[in-house]
Amino acid sequence: METQAVRQDDKTPGLIAAIDLGSNSFHLIVARYEEGEIRPIERIGEKIQLAAGIDEEGNLDQRAMRRGWACLRRFSQYIEGMKPDLIRIVGTKALRMARNRRVFTRTAESILKCPVEVISGREEARLIYLGASHTQSDDHGQRLVVDIGGGSTELIIGERFEPKLLESLHMGCVVYSARFFPDGVITAERFDQAYYAARLEVLNVLKNYRRMGWDEVLGSSGTIKSVEQVLVAGGVTQQGITRAGMETLRQRVIEIGHVDQIQLEGLKPDRANIFPAGLAILTAVFDALRLKRMQYSDGALREGLLYDMVGSQQHEYVRERTLNALMRRYRVDKKHARRVRKQALVCFRQVAESWRLGAYEREILSTAAWLHELGMAVSHTRYHKHGDYLVRHSDMLGFTSYEQRAIALLIRGHRRSLPMHLYENMSPYYRERVVRLTILLRLSIVLNHIRSEDTLPEYQLSVEGTRLTLDLGSGWLHEHPLIRADFAREVERLAVAGYSLLVQ
Amino acid sequence: METQAVRQDDKTPGLIAAIDLGSNSFHLIVARYEEGEIRPIERIGEKIQLAAGIDEEGNLDQRAMRRGWACLRRFSQYIEGMKPDLIRIVGTKALRMARNRRVFTRTAESILKCPVEVISGREEARLIYLGASHTQSDDHGQRLVVDIGGGSTELIIGERFEPKLLESLHMGCVVYSARFFPDGVITAERFDQAYYAARLEVLNVLKNYRRMGWDEVLGSSGTIKSVEQVLVAGGVTQQGITRAGMETLRQRVIEIGHVDQIQLEGLKPDRANIFPAGLAILTAVFDALRLKRMQYSDGALREGLLYDMVGSQQHEYVRERTLNALMRRYRVDKKHARRVRKQALVCFRQVAESWRLGAYEREILSTAAWLHELGMAVSHTRYHKHGDYLVRHSDMLGFTSYEQRAIALLIRGHRRSLPMHLYENMSPYYRERVVRLTILLRLSIVLNHIRSEDTLPEYQLSVEGTRLTLDLGSGWLHEHPLIRADFAREVERLAVAGYSLLVQ
Repeated sequence: METQAVRQDDKTPGLIAAIDLGSNSFHLIVARYEEGEIRPIERIGEKIQLAAGIDEEGNLDQRAMRRGWACLRRFSQYIEGMKPDLIRIVGTKALRMARNRRVFTRTAESILKCPVEVISGREEARLIYLGASHTQSDDHGQRLVVDIGGGSTELIIGERFEPKLLESLHMGCVVYSARFFPDGVITAERFDQAYYAARLEVLNVLKNYRRMGWDEVLGSSGTIKSVEQVLVAGGVTQQGITRAGMETLRQRVIEIGHVDQIQLEGLKPDRANIFPAGLAILTAVFDALRLKRMQYSDGALREGLLYDMVGSQQHEYVRERTLNALMRRYRVDKKHARRVRKQALVCFRQVAESWRLGAYEREILSTAAWLHELGMAVSHTRYHKHGDYLVRHSDMLGFTSYEQRAIALLIRGHRRSLPMHLYENMSPYYRERVVRLTILLRLSIVLNHIRSEDTLPEYQLSVEGTRLTLDLGSGWLHEHPLIRADFAREVERLAVAGYSLLVQ
Repeated sequence: METQAVRQDDKTPGLIAAIDLGSNSFHLIVARYEEGEIRPIERIGEKIQLAAGIDEEGNLDQRAMRRGWACLRRFSQYIEGMKPDLIRIVGTKALRMARNRRVFTRTAESILKCPVEVISGREEARLIYLGASHTQSDDHGQRLVVDIGGGSTELIIGERFEPKLLESLHMGCVVYSARFFPDGVITAERFDQAYYAARLEVLNVLKNYRRMGWDEVLGSSGTIKSVEQVLVAGGVTQQGITRAGMETLRQRVIEIGHVDQIQLEGLKPDRANIFPAGLAILTAVFDALRLKRMQYSDGALREGLLYDMVGSQQHEYVRERTLNALMRRYRVDKKHARRVRKQALVCFRQVAESWRLGAYEREILSTAAWLHELGMAVSHTRYHKHGDYLVRHSDMLGFTSYEQRAIALLIRGHRRSLPMHLYENMSPYYRERVVRLTILLRLSIVLNHIRSEDTLPEYQLSVEGTRLTLDLGSGWLHEHPLIRADFAREVERLAVAGYSLLVQ
């Protein structure tokens, strides 16, 4: 989306920023972007433990949300006056899990004056890899990157800046602390329970990773950083993490017996309570993947966000690849999709100014046009619903969850009645955009029907608020009763959404 | 499913039967199956107009259901004493639409003492083609078959007994009568509205049909039969239906002006009220596909059911092809699926007798094992839910809706917690089967985990009601703490479903 990407050819020096609303900590990074280089000038992290604030119904409790908002108020000072295009704010596992995530993000957006996206586990993995690989100076062939977050753990294999295998597993140091060490007591048995639970999670994906293999192993995230720092501070290793080193740490924390008593050189006090769970997960990852050694890498999700922002060409490429992969897998009829997309963009151009739609919306319409028949691969019956499902649930690398949802909604509404019930809980702004783009997609499909029946005349589409006028030229419509019937049906359907359509 | 198929090598002469619970009429056909040949000995049809009995909430009303049940009580005399394996009973569009379809089918099953399946539109199309193609003596290359039912219209292109392109469209003579001629008055405008609505439906699929082309055109269904009979009786054509002939009929019914006044030679009086709508649909199909002539064929859905029953090898082949197509499209890891399936069948063998599971259930378990990772193509996150969705909504030719639902449920429950809420509204019999097969699939997956870690020992699975004992041999489990952890978790999860698992 052009509005979100800093052009690589933009020579003006400027500030860019990223905020990572993690399940354990929130992080802010501000960097100067000059001559194609990113120089961080500010890094702040605050422990929020959002994941620990999710109650039994799956909702973030008020206290956790208030902790988060207070932190964002502090962060907001650092990004004041920056253009929203140059800031990216993403939420991860805890917000993916929280059923009331919108309550949190709405207030967060008004504090930060920037959109907040909740990204998928695989998108998170991609960004982590981007961050970790950009902060490595050397190139050692294939690279395994492990990131143990508060709520999820990412495993990525890639080469240079290119991720090849991505997974996000349901385990993290905050979630596992609550589950296996709820009162802070550490026993060998509890440690083993956490360890085996983590082994079982890795088991699900093990095969593909072993098969692909790697030449070096990097770890990012606070958990891995703290394990390395404790090992180095204690003289167990000179640098990096070893399996034997972790075994000594395991024995130490079990001896200590309670998280409140953990005081280890190199360990920040505010990480003590999640240290045993993080250690158990890391040990399980080592054993499952048969790792001997791991190096800590400074680059993580937030750095990945910055590199993603400046690498707009790369970003376009990722999205194009995602789109092509979907079209291939579900055997989209490209010729048809291209024709519909063409008319959709012709319509778009004619109304963009009046409806105040920009490049961002154009991109959503274009992608939805490419994918509108996606669901036919599942079944022709209700294929608009299947397409909606597939787009909503697929890992669409390079697309934000906001974009993904909008594209899915356009597909859902491209035929038959407009799904008014799905628009009910949206903010008026979002609903208006989605409905208008859906209408453009629908008109382009009807216009494409014309195409298969006859030659399409030059047409004029004009809009004024919720009133649309489509001028097909005098007499033409009269000679084409089938098209007239099609538009007549369309007029009825748009009326339900409060839009009037005059076709002449 | 072996229990549903008459073996081709079965030389005993016997009766087979099929009942088609159509949206307009119910039909029964009883045939003698001898030496590989089907000889119909009884054909009965009754007009029920189930589709006209669907109320605004989408439920079949009591009156329509009672009409249906009364008819089935009459039909039941003809199939009394026949083995349920040799009878197939299917519902089509009206039952697909009806939200309370289970209310109808449950009573129907108890009247007929046979399972009633509601089949998908594409499965219906496949069976229609099978029926139509088997009753043609000559072979004229590629064949287009059109069937205008009460609630849906099927278009199929095939060659010999092989359908190549299948569609089921949302239009039918009963539904269109209610929509366009609600009070029976026929005007030119109403006729045109029905006609254009039908044109728009065909428009959705037109392209593929025109592209594939055909050499001959057959029509099945009562609508097409009655149009042909009226044309022949009136001397308009010698045989078959022509576009010009239909135009004269259109003018006649508009002149007549009301369905109650329609009396045409060759038209059965009880078809008069749906004749205009059927004619409008047929005319639209002619124009959209640019047909000049159509021949009526005697074979339809019910004949297709018989040929499908006796052609068990063909049937197996259709299912195998469906399964392979799904595995290819969603890139299932066949090696892994094969290993899981193998253990699932080993488990099945050990408990089949005690749990009274037969070949039919074995087939469901086997198919679910092949497909259990299907949803990974969409996303690894919650892939069991995606697999469930894909199987539930795909057109799985050769599988009944009952089988499809069961397979989807097994996939849904193969990992994480058992989805107890999905079992709530099931009949106890169905629930017990689904839960037990799901447990077998789950155990086979855990056992397959073992495999990737170590050599699997010989094991004994025994069951007694809801108590399972898995004996892995003395000491083995003790040496494998990861597996132990995996089974410990499994014990907890099965307990929720009321099953106890002892692993030793």
